[in-house]
Amino acid sequence: MTIDRLALIGVGLIGGSLARGLKRSGAVGQVVGVARTRETLRKALELGVIDRAEDRVEAAAAAADIVVIATPMQTIPLILDSLDACIGRHTVVTDVGSAKGYVVKAVETHLPRNRDRFVPGHPIAGREHAGVEASTADLFEKKSVILTPCEYTDPEATELVAAMWRETGANVENMDARIHDQVLAATSHLPHVVAYALVDFLARQSEADMLFRLAAGGFYDFTRIASSDPVMWRDICLTNDEALLAVLQGYRGTIDQLIDAVKRSDGDALRECFERSKRSRDAGLEGKAGGSR
Amino acid sequence: MTIDRLALIGVGLIGGSLARGLKRSGAVGQVVGVARTRETLRKALELGVIDRAEDRVEAAAAAADIVVIATPMQTIPLILDSLDACIGRHTVVTDVGSAKGYVVKAVETHLPRNRDRFVPGHPIAGREHAGVEASTADLFEKKSVILTPCEYTDPEATELVAAMWRETGANVENMDARIHDQVLAATSHLPHVVAYALVDFLARQSEADMLFRLAAGGFYDFTRIASSDPVMWRDICLTNDEALLAVLQGYRGTIDQLIDAVKRSDGDALRECFERSKRSRDAGLEGKAGGSR
Repeated sequence: MTIDRLALIGVGLIGGSLARGLKRSGAVGQVVGVARTRETLRKALELGVIDRAEDRVEAAAAAADIVVIATPMQTIPLILDSLDACIGRHTVVTDVGSAKGYVVKAVETHLPRNRDRFVPGHPIAGREHAGVEASTADLFEKKSVILTPCEYTDPEATELVAAMWRETGANVENMDARIHDQVLAATSHLPHVVAYALVDFLARQSEADMLFRLAAGGFYDFTRIASSDPVMWRDICLTNDEALLAVLQGYRGTIDQLIDAVKRSDGDALRECFERSKRSRDAGLEGKAGGSR
Repeated sequence: MTIDRLALIGVGLIGGSLARGLKRSGAVGQVVGVARTRETLRKALELGVIDRAEDRVEAAAAAADIVVIATPMQTIPLILDSLDACIGRHTVVTDVGSAKGYVVKAVETHLPRNRDRFVPGHPIAGREHAGVEASTADLFEKKSVILTPCEYTDPEATELVAAMWRETGANVENMDARIHDQVLAATSHLPHVVAYALVDFLARQSEADMLFRLAAGGFYDFTRIASSDPVMWRDICLTNDEALLAVLQGYRGTIDQLIDAVKRSDGDALRECFERSKRSRDAGLEGKAGGSR
């Protein structure tokens, strides 16, 4: 495939890595970037991630074949407002946000005339480090990218976005937005909240300094995801609140069962939970090793 | 230092690594091992971890300078019964269990005549793999070993055990048994229970297969400790139940606060929690890098 012009709204880790991946495979002609700061645009130009910088969304999107929104999720409505006024009927728009129900609602409200040209997307990939400096051409290789087209989405638009992601080495699959949000709440958003809660609980103990000093290496591996960007995770919690609440409450139920088991000295209940957990995780890992990622 | 004869009751990862570490530094003459199975003793002899195998605790402990109990914690009372009847007044006994209040109680009940010769100990080190085959001479290098002597413990016995651990490259510190149990509950036992609960909760969802397939790599790093030995962790939960319950209930309180914050769409509360968590963890890591481990 060839995308003559790609407009990249937000030139961070994800947007930058997409541009690099497409350039590496020769799938894109020109990448036009828009960013919140001039500094980011300067770096992105310097690194060759983008070919041209624009100040305004409208200027970047003009004559673009694909517009990729890769900004913090809460900015998406404003960007859609700008796009609805300026994009041509041939332009396809997509995003990379972690909560698809939220994005679909935003599209229906803020991109009403062109909602059929919008393909909600979510690459399941990331790194500890953020920013365009951390972007790499291989970030999406063998990773899953989930697209959640609606019944009104133009199938050709969906196919174009899928083809774009495949150029970066990703495996693309379609899913209902609601299912996506439930799956991500369970496998990504819940673990992050659980890790944040654990570290925060310990940090608020009177002997916190000693706790962190004596914590073994395993503790720091376990809580690595609690070093993620707090603002990004606040936004994910607020935009995927419904699905997140459901799994958080279910998880609290499991914690309650374990508290009861410890209170009752119920060794069998504890062992059953721990064994089920170990078995599932080990089986999941085997599936990964033999599977597509 | 030189330990002429060390009796090792339990020849697994921890006991085996201690024997190897002492042999490497030339700090031990003969290591006599006792294990639950002949197969383990055969392997330990073959690997040179022990020099002699014995079937019975009494035979191994006779004429030993130090007896190290490195078995699952729930077997400690029975082993102490055997030792109380046979050890000489010069013999020092220690253990490696994760819950020191439990061990102290067991010593007072099952080693009454020699309780001043017993030094409760806990090396904070481990690996994913168990068994004597996984033991290494450097397992304790730069790791913390905590000793929790009681007011009746012979200070010379405590010093002997401390010197032994220092020969393996460990940093030894003394601590009250109660404090040890609270610290370990917070930094090790709680994280394990949290990880087990998370994986078990997901495993019991109807779409569990899809969840584990779509979980990103970060999920498997995060839950690595949920692949730990379920029986060992059941025993830790049962033997350190009081301190574990306190932190589990406190942690549940933090989860409840986050649930409320998501319900209220309280972005400030979420961000504050996530920022405090990230700051504490990052600061703890810096302390580690610049500190003693």
